[in-house]
Amino acid sequence: MKSSLPSYKVCILGGGQLGWMMILEGRKLPLTFYVIANPEEPACRVADKCFSEENYKEAIDQCDVVTFEFEHVNEEALEYAQESGKLLPKVNSVELKRERYKEKEFLRDHGFPVPRFKVVQDGEEALKVLKDEFNNVGVLKQSRGGYDGKGQYFIKGDPEKYQFLKNVKCKFMVEEFVNFDFEASIIATRGRGEFKAYTPSFNYNEKGILVYNYGPYYNEEMVKIAERLTKELDYIGTMGIEFFVMRNKVLINEFAPRVHNTGHYTLDGAFTSQFEQHLRAILGMELGETTVLKPFGMVNILGRPSFPPEVLKLGKVYWYGKEEARKRRKMGHVNVVGEDLEEVKQKIDKIMQLIYPEGLDL
Amino acid sequence: MKSSLPSYKVCILGGGQLGWMMILEGRKLPLTFYVIANPEEPACRVADKCFSEENYKEAIDQCDVVTFEFEHVNEEALEYAQESGKLLPKVNSVELKRERYKEKEFLRDHGFPVPRFKVVQDGEEALKVLKDEFNNVGVLKQSRGGYDGKGQYFIKGDPEKYQFLKNVKCKFMVEEFVNFDFEASIIATRGRGEFKAYTPSFNYNEKGILVYNYGPYYNEEMVKIAERLTKELDYIGTMGIEFFVMRNKVLINEFAPRVHNTGHYTLDGAFTSQFEQHLRAILGMELGETTVLKPFGMVNILGRPSFPPEVLKLGKVYWYGKEEARKRRKMGHVNVVGEDLEEVKQKIDKIMQLIYPEGLDL
Repeated sequence: MKSSLPSYKVCILGGGQLGWMMILEGRKLPLTFYVIANPEEPACRVADKCFSEENYKEAIDQCDVVTFEFEHVNEEALEYAQESGKLLPKVNSVELKRERYKEKEFLRDHGFPVPRFKVVQDGEEALKVLKDEFNNVGVLKQSRGGYDGKGQYFIKGDPEKYQFLKNVKCKFMVEEFVNFDFEASIIATRGRGEFKAYTPSFNYNEKGILVYNYGPYYNEEMVKIAERLTKELDYIGTMGIEFFVMRNKVLINEFAPRVHNTGHYTLDGAFTSQFEQHLRAILGMELGETTVLKPFGMVNILGRPSFPPEVLKLGKVYWYGKEEARKRRKMGHVNVVGEDLEEVKQKIDKIMQLIYPEGLDL
Repeated sequence: MKSSLPSYKVCILGGGQLGWMMILEGRKLPLTFYVIANPEEPACRVADKCFSEENYKEAIDQCDVVTFEFEHVNEEALEYAQESGKLLPKVNSVELKRERYKEKEFLRDHGFPVPRFKVVQDGEEALKVLKDEFNNVGVLKQSRGGYDGKGQYFIKGDPEKYQFLKNVKCKFMVEEFVNFDFEASIIATRGRGEFKAYTPSFNYNEKGILVYNYGPYYNEEMVKIAERLTKELDYIGTMGIEFFVMRNKVLINEFAPRVHNTGHYTLDGAFTSQFEQHLRAILGMELGETTVLKPFGMVNILGRPSFPPEVLKLGKVYWYGKEEARKRRKMGHVNVVGEDLEEVKQKIDKIMQLIYPEGLDL
């Protein structure tokens, strides 16, 4: 008897490690993957077929569903996919991410907890508002093009150092400086009506880039926020939401309408990975279990051309296969599990020492 | 800085699901996979390059290490790989598997617990020995070509039904009928001097084919046997050993010098999968952690052209993508985890009902 299973073609916009892991995790299901990216990028190397950006129509026309692994992808391709009715999650979530203030305004207007902020027209106004309304302590964020900490300026009573921003002619957000106890995030997935969240994690960021995270960190408020936010956006797929946590209060820092770096732990610390869950959601399949299997941790390998082999004794290495190791570039990550958070943290410390023997250089 | 990680080329003899999972699991490491098999077979579909059997020399010459996913592969290719010094595990383990009696004699001669058996020259002698020395109760096994229960005859006082074996002109083993309480197996890996075992599982076989298994089932004797057996064979890689268990006694049924169907649970129920562990061992990398994350279970999808989508709610499906669903053929499997063995067994029951609503047909 011929195999009668429907085999879906999934098109992924973007060729980075998030798409790479989505394909590796999706291979167990009867799926075919087309990627729109440069052929040397990680996801293209494991795709069934790789398309250049100009050929996005050809790729999208052949696929059953289109998704993205990064929100700053070719806008024409996104629009074309949206119009074809194949894009999931839909373009509304990405549009909120194109300019930082749109995301923040959406969140505030829908009653989600966010830091106090104000939108201004350019760098000069930003510095003025920072002085008049924030007492020269706050964060100036360029509204466009920010990712992994780019375009963000933390000013703590020393605005004179930032006078160069007076010449920057783009919208800014002036945001209160949040003196958080720690940062945390949640990964959650919405399917056709169904919602499933993973256990949040504690995150350690440096210079706007995630260095490591670990958990479980149980926080019911984050779960509720994730459920309401995905519903308000009529979102289908996996989403990551980053928070600032102070005592009993949480504020949303930002959301990512895609699988997320702080969810890499789900490859080993949860039953269904965030990547498989995303695919199940966009394909209308049943969502899988998200319960934590063990206390977990993840360490990013940033800007290093290789990893020391001893790391394999402590954890599992996911090496993305990028040709060039540039500063701050995510080259791979290491997942660990342990009997308790203490053991996980000890492993993270050892791995940090092995990968960055001379310290982080971000 | 250019990435400076050594990237190994691994050649896999055989194109079935075991090779397929080895590649899926190995993709996270900087490895390239060449497979010697037919292009439509599962492992070939996910390989970097697929070679036909005639071209084995070309493939092996280009690889750093050669392994196999099934012991009954092209013997010339195996010998060539062995002579090239690239074959791991080495050919000695496979040679013991070519004829059943060689494996059993090796085990008995090295003091491992096995059922009582006798080797005879043909079917006629087998029936005579069964009568004279086993009181017509026992198992007749053809020495060659047995796999998944083929070539095995269980005779329980009714030898008259098996008189057709008188005309079979090949070596047989006559083996005592073991009235076991249950069957179990262990998956273990030997690296360069290092040994790591997974937690054994309870196995349910029907007509010589694994239907489902679950665990953890802790048994120290099995761990000791696995450690000594891999050492005696100077084995490098992952091995599966199947046992009969009676009260406090275990007998080896057989070993498989490769990753094993009863170890599929390690993809989700253990930190490092048996497939990644095998690759680490043959590549001389550090072995990974093998501790069980949660009580686990696995159900084989046998001879079915598809699976009901509801199964995804209970577990993770690994669909091998074989074109034709023949009776008894392994088309995929489902992995589950649970809080305890009871929950795991309930999930297995539900999945069995979903996949085989009219019962197993083996």
